[in-house]
Amino acid sequence: MTGMQALGWEFLGTALLMLLGNGVCALNTLRTSGARGTGWVLITFGWGLGVYVGASVADPSGGHLNPAVTIMVAIKGGLDWSLVPYYCVGQLLGAFVGAVLAWAAFKQLFDANNVNERGEVVQGNHNTNTIFFTAPAHPNNFWNVVTEFIGTSVLLLFIAFGPVMKDGQSLGPLSYFGVAFVVVAVGMSLGTPTGYAINPVRDLGPRLAYSFLLPIKDKGPSNWSYAWVPIVGPMLSAVVVGLVAAAL
Amino acid sequence: MTGMQALGWEFLGTALLMLLGNGVCALNTLRTSGARGTGWVLITFGWGLGVYVGASVADPSGGHLNPAVTIMVAIKGGLDWSLVPYYCVGQLLGAFVGAVLAWAAFKQLFDANNVNERGEVVQGNHNTNTIFFTAPAHPNNFWNVVTEFIGTSVLLLFIAFGPVMKDGQSLGPLSYFGVAFVVVAVGMSLGTPTGYAINPVRDLGPRLAYSFLLPIKDKGPSNWSYAWVPIVGPMLSAVVVGLVAAAL
Amino acid sequence: MTGMQALGWEFLGTALLMLLGNGVCALNTLRTSGARGTGWVLITFGWGLGVYVGASVADPSGGHLNPAVTIMVAIKGGLDWSLVPYYCVGQLLGAFVGAVLAWAAFKQLFDANNVNERGEVVQGNHNTNTIFFTAPAHPNNFWNVVTEFIGTSVLLLFIAFGPVMKDGQSLGPLSYFGVAFVVVAVGMSLGTPTGYAINPVRDLGPRLAYSFLLPIKDKGPSNWSYAWVPIVGPMLSAVVVGLVAAAL
Amino acid sequence: MTGMQALGWEFLGTALLMLLGNGVCALNTLRTSGARGTGWVLITFGWGLGVYVGASVADPSGGHLNPAVTIMVAIKGGLDWSLVPYYCVGQLLGAFVGAVLAWAAFKQLFDANNVNERGEVVQGNHNTNTIFFTAPAHPNNFWNVVTEFIGTSVLLLFIAFGPVMKDGQSLGPLSYFGVAFVVVAVGMSLGTPTGYAINPVRDLGPRLAYSFLLPIKDKGPSNWSYAWVPIVGPMLSAVVVGLVAAAL
Repeated sequence: MTGMQALGWEFLGTALLMLLGNGVCALNTLRTSGARGTGWVLITFGWGLGVYVGASVADPSGGHLNPAVTIMVAIKGGLDWSLVPYYCVGQLLGAFVGAVLAWAAFKQLFDANNVNERGEVVQGNHNTNTIFFTAPAHPNNFWNVVTEFIGTSVLLLFIAFGPVMKDGQSLGPLSYFGVAFVVVAVGMSLGTPTGYAINPVRDLGPRLAYSFLLPIKDKGPSNWSYAWVPIVGPMLSAVVVGLVAAAL
Repeated sequence: MTGMQALGWEFLGTALLMLLGNGVCALNTLRTSGARGTGWVLITFGWGLGVYVGASVADPSGGHLNPAVTIMVAIKGGLDWSLVPYYCVGQLLGAFVGAVLAWAAFKQLFDANNVNERGEVVQGNHNTNTIFFTAPAHPNNFWNVVTEFIGTSVLLLFIAFGPVMKDGQSLGPLSYFGVAFVVVAVGMSLGTPTGYAINPVRDLGPRLAYSFLLPIKDKGPSNWSYAWVPIVGPMLSAVVVGLVAAAL
Repeated sequence: MTGMQALGWEFLGTALLMLLGNGVCALNTLRTSGARGTGWVLITFGWGLGVYVGASVADPSGGHLNPAVTIMVAIKGGLDWSLVPYYCVGQLLGAFVGAVLAWAAFKQLFDANNVNERGEVVQGNHNTNTIFFTAPAHPNNFWNVVTEFIGTSVLLLFIAFGPVMKDGQSLGPLSYFGVAFVVVAVGMSLGTPTGYAINPVRDLGPRLAYSFLLPIKDKGPSNWSYAWVPIVGPMLSAVVVGLVAAAL
Repeated sequence: MTGMQALGWEFLGTALLMLLGNGVCALNTLRTSGARGTGWVLITFGWGLGVYVGASVADPSGGHLNPAVTIMVAIKGGLDWSLVPYYCVGQLLGAFVGAVLAWAAFKQLFDANNVNERGEVVQGNHNTNTIFFTAPAHPNNFWNVVTEFIGTSVLLLFIAFGPVMKDGQSLGPLSYFGVAFVVVAVGMSLGTPTGYAINPVRDLGPRLAYSFLLPIKDKGPSNWSYAWVPIVGPMLSAVVVGLVAAAL
């Protein structure tokens, strides 16, 4: 696998993940969505299945879709460090494009979220930022990092020691069901304190798209002061789990 | 596999899919159904499991159940073009018959949806068209096609590149779990803007059955002016994904 | 496999199925259950997983758990007719015992369902019959049989033609996930018109236990006049699908 | 496998199980959790997926995570008795640490559960004990033991006779999906009468952590008088199922 091939597959897989992940949040949130307010079972399954689809399609590159996975695998010794930048660039670009596609699929509903049938501005789009990137229930740098660290560690321990991946490659089609299950598990059990980014690009890619590109009227704040938390928490976990896995 | 055998298996599989798919919508909608209003988790799992059952039974022909899948596979080079018409005819006939069977299973509830226990006409069947075929949350030809194109592309990219199918045939029983998961994923994440047909016959077959055959009293409009959208969106996706897959 | 061995495994598997199936209905219904009123997603998954557990444990005999499955397989030629009575007796006895176990697990809640904390009789147990056996949304012999026939046929077509069973034996552990999925599918899509017995002993066993044995105070009617429907509908399906499968 | 290795893997797996299991209860309960009150489908899937993740990671030691499983397997003859103490100590320590990690992930929400945004003490933490350990719907020593015995027996019969484990080791990655499914099944069907501990350390570990370590303000009672029930019920089941499995 060349670096550019890895970049391409990770781009495609992460775009599918974020299209489906941002999609389920839009579907659960927007005013005229027939499934508005369905809740946490829908959201956690939606994200888990997004990982399932994206990782399955990105099988040639191992379906990482997440710099924390890639870094952990590299530290463990399962991926050449020269490939790591290609993986991460593909993942970030994919996350950005996936967010744009999710917006496109819900374009009409974003419009109707802001202006009702009688043409009155209802300013519903102020909270659409939560469709795209994470926010903590209670802002607290230390404890928010702790929660992201713990959630990411569940994912990475599963990947490092569970029966799903070896040397950065999956152990067959069953692996992707396993990865989907662990992502649903983290969401159901640890999701609400910080929105379970557990993946730096899952948060950064859509935050960039929302802030600088998406033509959503009356959109909400980008909250850049929080943006480092869902990067640092998962990356700390990648280093710790990677070192533990390399040592064992 | 002869053309007529393919037609037969696709007929049977698509009939099961539509029986279960239209069934879950009836079960969630009709006035005297004990699960009325359960919501989007039920509906998306119901459709996904319908694909699981139908595709598993139609294993000899690859369990396509969807002209967009068949066309994509043919463009990719995995199916002889001479078989394509047999596949599509079987799928359309199956979708028609499946809708009729769903009506039969819920016959008593359709009656009670229209006339209550005291014999009063409550005209509840006016909206039963949504049980059988799709309608957009906001009618807009361009953006509705975009949404159907995106949703179908998730399905087809998964089938083209994921670990489930080769040369139009499944890669074993695990594949059908994968196809069920991706259909649940599309429904949960992209379903509400257009009702996620992502399959021309899933919409056209039941629309024909509802309009011209089913003896439901006081039924709603057939909305034929929208009927081309869930055909064109998925077919555009089939061509694009097929060409991409053939090129890679 | 001797007849008595088959009887034993089918007994054990069907007892587990009915313990879990009647259990989820009790859990969803009884006044002091913390999950009261959760609804149809819970009920359909509960029954599907009950089949998963029961059929997995009864693997040595093929995990039929259902006379309709056994008869269909025998007609298809996958099981010696001399074994059929042992299968069916084990299934009926297991269904009876499973219902008793479900009552025992919820004993305290059945008591509290009838008499509240202040010792007042609230007669809540009048409707506990629906925990144990099925009842139609609208009593109509013909259409109720049609619905049971259609639902059972989905199950039996899947077993006859899907990748789960050969000659009355399962095709490995993955098969039981498939059978669980199809049972959830039938429940989600076709369940509410008749309560989806789709299995004669699933209805008859608990109906016998409830009517003649369980010491539930102020219990509801046994409704024996309906008891033939969930026997005849599934059995008709067994004959039809068996003959079709034998001919193909 | 040495005893200390077994202890280590069981520690890690059980810690993940309890982190996720106590986590889903916190997520469903705490005042400022965005998924508060989601209900029983969430809780049962959360625990089942917790078992999936923990058991997969603890694959080298067979992923027991439960003294009842370990004892049953030892009685059946699949595990050397000299290893049993290592297994059980690892499981108890893991359950303790997992509960602490769940508290850490939700630290901010535990604080906000007790004191609202205006700094007023609302004493919401009095009921946080139910997040960590089980309590019966109706206290009754005999019937509570019966319910725990029945629920554990479903799990152990599945492990003893289903296609998931041989000689204390799993039969490959698919096994852990099976174990997850059976735990969801027990929760959905038998969970509410006693909270389905079905595992002595699942209850004892968090009860110890909550009572003696966790710095939660205004916490509720430890209810030690009930603590023997979720130990004795599962252990009785381990002995009975182990003897039956050894005899067959």
